Amino acid sequence: MVYQVDLNCDMGESFGRYKLSEQKDILTYVSSANIACGFHAGDPTVMRETVQLALENGVKIGAHPGLPDLNGFGRREMAITAQQAYDMVIYQIGALHAFLTTYNAQMQHVKPHGALYNMAAKDKELAAAIAQAVNDFSTNLVLYALSGSELAKAGEKIGLTTAHEVFADRTYQSDGSLTSRNENNAFITNREQAVSQVIRMVTESKVISTQKNAVPLKADTICIHGDGKHALEFAAYITDAFQKHNIRISPV
Amino acid sequence: MVYQVDLNCDMGESFGRYKLSEQKDILTYVSSANIACGFHAGDPTVMRETVQLALENGVKIGAHPGLPDLNGFGRREMAITAQQAYDMVIYQIGALHAFLTTYNAQMQHVKPHGALYNMAAKDKELAAAIAQAVNDFSTNLVLYALSGSELAKAGEKIGLTTAHEVFADRTYQSDGSLTSRNENNAFITNREQAVSQVIRMVTESKVISTQKNAVPLKADTICIHGDGKHALEFAAYITDAFQKHNIRISPV
Amino acid sequence: MVYQVDLNCDMGESFGRYKLSEQKDILTYVSSANIACGFHAGDPTVMRETVQLALENGVKIGAHPGLPDLNGFGRREMAITAQQAYDMVIYQIGALHAFLTTYNAQMQHVKPHGALYNMAAKDKELAAAIAQAVNDFSTNLVLYALSGSELAKAGEKIGLTTAHEVFADRTYQSDGSLTSRNENNAFITNREQAVSQVIRMVTESKVISTQKNAVPLKADTICIHGDGKHALEFAAYITDAFQKHNIRISPV
Amino acid sequence: MVYQVDLNCDMGESFGRYKLSEQKDILTYVSSANIACGFHAGDPTVMRETVQLALENGVKIGAHPGLPDLNGFGRREMAITAQQAYDMVIYQIGALHAFLTTYNAQMQHVKPHGALYNMAAKDKELAAAIAQAVNDFSTNLVLYALSGSELAKAGEKIGLTTAHEVFADRTYQSDGSLTSRNENNAFITNREQAVSQVIRMVTESKVISTQKNAVPLKADTICIHGDGKHALEFAAYITDAFQKHNIRISPV
Repeated sequence: MVYQVDLNCDMGESFGRYKLSEQKDILTYVSSANIACGFHAGDPTVMRETVQLALENGVKIGAHPGLPDLNGFGRREMAITAQQAYDMVIYQIGALHAFLTTYNAQMQHVKPHGALYNMAAKDKELAAAIAQAVNDFSTNLVLYALSGSELAKAGEKIGLTTAHEVFADRTYQSDGSLTSRNENNAFITNREQAVSQVIRMVTESKVISTQKNAVPLKADTICIHGDGKHALEFAAYITDAFQKHNIRISPV
Repeated sequence: MVYQVDLNCDMGESFGRYKLSEQKDILTYVSSANIACGFHAGDPTVMRETVQLALENGVKIGAHPGLPDLNGFGRREMAITAQQAYDMVIYQIGALHAFLTTYNAQMQHVKPHGALYNMAAKDKELAAAIAQAVNDFSTNLVLYALSGSELAKAGEKIGLTTAHEVFADRTYQSDGSLTSRNENNAFITNREQAVSQVIRMVTESKVISTQKNAVPLKADTICIHGDGKHALEFAAYITDAFQKHNIRISPV
Repeated sequence: MVYQVDLNCDMGESFGRYKLSEQKDILTYVSSANIACGFHAGDPTVMRETVQLALENGVKIGAHPGLPDLNGFGRREMAITAQQAYDMVIYQIGALHAFLTTYNAQMQHVKPHGALYNMAAKDKELAAAIAQAVNDFSTNLVLYALSGSELAKAGEKIGLTTAHEVFADRTYQSDGSLTSRNENNAFITNREQAVSQVIRMVTESKVISTQKNAVPLKADTICIHGDGKHALEFAAYITDAFQKHNIRISPV
Repeated sequence: MVYQVDLNCDMGESFGRYKLSEQKDILTYVSSANIACGFHAGDPTVMRETVQLALENGVKIGAHPGLPDLNGFGRREMAITAQQAYDMVIYQIGALHAFLTTYNAQMQHVKPHGALYNMAAKDKELAAAIAQAVNDFSTNLVLYALSGSELAKAGEKIGLTTAHEVFADRTYQSDGSLTSRNENNAFITNREQAVSQVIRMVTESKVISTQKNAVPLKADTICIHGDGKHALEFAAYITDAFQKHNIRISPV
């Protein structure tokens, strides 16, 4: 049997003179890239350059809208209203879309960033607002959401193609949620363990929680890190393992 | 003989709790509105609300991109590169366009704001970059530029429909430029005088400079102020005068 | 018997071209002013002008630090760490203090703004960090905090003079907390009712909750609004009532 | 004969998740550090950490105020008024001063950053406003300014101790100005050449311009870069050369 999964990573998170340690070569491994839109990271020039880079590598492009908190990199939860979430997602999708338009290219997906992603995973109203924003901009867009989350449900409910996202390097709880970053065992640092978790998620649609339970889970797309010095090594390692397990990497 | 001219005003320049004294009823007088895009003014929520308001009033909508200087309201010149100008115009057009998309509406035009407008009026390279940005986003957009300016020339050169803009309440120099705001006689405060200047510009394609010379000038669109307590009075006064002089107000 | 209480209001919340409807004459009524420090509102120029204005009116000055959220006016809770709260309070106190220094004037107090104020009222760790920041900058500063709150307790614990603050136009719950703004009965719109609540708080150290219980409460300082068209009327009304009840308005 | 000169470098220019490649060990070589204040770079947490680091290394601390342009790193000239320059310098000095206060430490100097530094070198009015701001905050502060510039003159005129600054890695014109960064020969990439230029400036008070003229020049403080991979090597190299030429590194 042949399996198929999308491999995505964040890109375009530099800002002016500030450069993140993004590995451009990661684009030779992933099938989709989430490009920051200027709120939590990125600026117009970085966005244009990143769009061009993704297109040159034949990688599908998605908008990666975040909270208006550059200093916190969009990782601090903010008590925004559902309407504000709708408005800021529309704004950011549009900003990125404009750069794609200049290259005569299409946007594939939208994946909220950081705290916005996490809040929308749990908050029904916020999730509905974000799904509505994506849908109102274009019904052809795919919504990327934490597998099994409220955001994934909201996307499906409104009729959007919804990609359930799993993480290679994070552990899971028995309710299917990610272990909080505040817990010691939140991250999987051993790459063999990370890859075997991913392979189980893709081929068996389940994950083993930290409580040692088998938890059913959809895995349409896998998030890997594009920054840091081991990013390329891990990308090579996971794509190699996929080949051995008949898992084909392909956009959603 | 019947003349035709566009009447435009800026809108959507509030920000969060900060409200400008914009007169919504001005939209019953003008044919086009320039909506701020979040850099010098405006925020995603204000943009959505303003787009809706303009559509309800049957007013054509344009993007009003500015410099990234909220504290200076985009009125302080900044030494940006032509590439940065291109990028920030693409970004802002896209952000506004997204809101129009959710209403299934079209963008009519792009008019740079404040210092960006003034710099592009004089700087060929900046003008070319902005015209290129508008053109790359959509060749159907109209570029609004100071009548006779480098930006107007750049728009025409690239093949964009270009609207030469004149001002009702500003005086002109013999070279066709606006009298600097630093000069005492920069503004026309008498409304009869303002309106008769506009009527001459529309019907005779010329303006009398402060040096008392008749200066040839194209007048495709007229900018009036939408904020301040006398905005509505002036709008009523000028539209009334137009009727008497067979000048029809109509989008570009 | 003669009572004494401080009357404070927020000032300096304009930003660039954006002016709030602050009534400068309110400074003839209040004894203390809380000046925004550029994060949720205010900018360097507004800060200098507001400091000068307060000094001209003989009003004591306090820093009014907020969350870094201009678009939300510092009213949206953000998941900042206690260390970040400490750092942003130090920064903002310092910025305002510099303007006072140029006038050879002293800062009287620090009052956190909006969501920072509300979060610190409930969150012990955040409260301790803010009290520590105030104390580390100067042990002579007075900390303004919601009466009976965690922030007030943290201020007293560290040894700061702490002013318990009450609100004229807000209703209270039986646990001494303010009724949430989301509730219909959160605000007192009748000014007689507002003033009689304040007088009871000052002279009897208690308030009647919405559940009709008498709740003990310290009232060292009263917050009134400086913006809006009825601000001056209300200030005149409350100071007049104070005079009749032997309540003297005086800084903390 | 023994000479004495200050060696300064910029520090604290990270922002949130964005880290510059600053070499902390550079603090073992320099006598003074210029700490960013949150406008062009830096944030409250970075400021606190950098102040602590400088104090641990016994390095004197100065404020490094910049233009409100994080995306441009304060390097794009902005048409601010002299009053705005005054206000933003006061604000930023105060913000940094507050962190020093919590460590019971003194501020030694103020050095404007980037475009603000360059504009103040040429513009008398701006220079006077900045010198006034430093002087109004504290007459004990030293003003760092480009050697021979309008800012240096303004500092001396108002009575501030003024440190004339020279650059190790920049070439000079015959009028004593720095060669524009746009010119090919703006930078000295050869370290022997850079160091011999500095030694001549310190010991002979002159520099050889690109036009091969000997230009008189005061050299009270030398700016070296603290970021980049060769920063430490160069710092070691220049301090070693100083020792051989009887030049003692010491704060101003």
